[in-house]
Amino acid sequence: MIKYPNGSKKVAPTKAMHTKTSYADRGMNFEEQINQSNDYYRVQNKAIIYKKPTPIKVVKAGKNEKGTYQIQEAYFAQPSTTDYNGLYRGCYVDFEAKETRNVNLFSLSNIHAHQLEHLFGIVEHGGIAFILVSFVRHNEVYLLDASKLKEIVEGGAKSIRYEEFKKEGHLVPYGYQAPIEYLKVVDEVYFKDL
Amino acid sequence: MIKYPNGSKKVAPTKAMHTKTSYADRGMNFEEQINQSNDYYRVQNKAIIYKKPTPIKVVKAGKNEKGTYQIQEAYFAQPSTTDYNGLYRGCYVDFEAKETRNVNLFSLSNIHAHQLEHLFGIVEHGGIAFILVSFVRHNEVYLLDASKLKEIVEGGAKSIRYEEFKKEGHLVPYGYQAPIEYLKVVDEVYFKDL
Repeated sequence: MIKYPNGSKKVAPTKAMHTKTSYADRGMNFEEQINQSNDYYRVQNKAIIYKKPTPIKVVKAGKNEKGTYQIQEAYFAQPSTTDYNGLYRGCYVDFEAKETRNVNLFSLSNIHAHQLEHLFGIVEHGGIAFILVSFVRHNEVYLLDASKLKEIVEGGAKSIRYEEFKKEGHLVPYGYQAPIEYLKVVDEVYFKDL
Repeated sequence: MIKYPNGSKKVAPTKAMHTKTSYADRGMNFEEQINQSNDYYRVQNKAIIYKKPTPIKVVKAGKNEKGTYQIQEAYFAQPSTTDYNGLYRGCYVDFEAKETRNVNLFSLSNIHAHQLEHLFGIVEHGGIAFILVSFVRHNEVYLLDASKLKEIVEGGAKSIRYEEFKKEGHLVPYGYQAPIEYLKVVDEVYFKDL
């Protein structure tokens, strides 16, 4: 340890500090980080969770000059469900992931009404449902259970404050092989009594 | 009841006979029939099961003259998982649906190796997994559990005979609002002891 003139100590980076290192540093965006986490979970045979393909509306398609069937005009369509679902510890898991650059709040306009309905329906049918929100400026990701989210939405709120995520949500640790270690939080929140 | 000269009776169509009426008669293909069944199950709040969008590989995209983001060249990609998954009676459900015009057998080349692996993985992780096979010429749909399918595949078979579906699978009734009433069979096969 190096002693500095003013008495402060330069501390070698600890593991705890490293957990603050976002894997955005690796040049991955939030979606890619979650995809990589899911890939890792699958390879480890821990969970089978996939991102659903983005739905598109094909306007024009046909065989090209090589005889290959080709989409020639299409548009991205609005998904009717969430982006991610799968199976973990015998349970159906469903979630939506969003990031925000806002420091103070997460606007609920980021999630479509039918996606909210879908998440609430999953809870009603006995599945595990939540949102993952990445506060980019805080370099933090929170998991918020869909039942809590439902209370907030039904309370008439149009946004959720960062402080509320700290209080009602669960901080998701960053990891190395699974950049977003959200299953650790799922264990704590949904399987703690097992 | 009308009596015919040769003594045969013309019987009014019964419910039992109607169950043999394929809803292909309505001009829907097998995929559309399953989608409509899932729509009905969702509206009835019975299950939340969706077809996943078909994955595509976008080669060229950009804003068109109207400023709308447009896919200008893309190709259908091979799905890494099955077409359908969701939540029923608190359980994760996952299946692939195929139809065949072959009278005697269903070729396993209809299902990609990674889709088979996916189905077997779902079983291992405690989910419900199966295939639905429509024998068009017989006007019958069978559900075959993924564990049975695994035994067959691991036995080295390249196809499954129609007779084997009759023996090892479960005939799926046709319905009106849910054209393919597969959840009735799921109830019998996976929830009979409840």
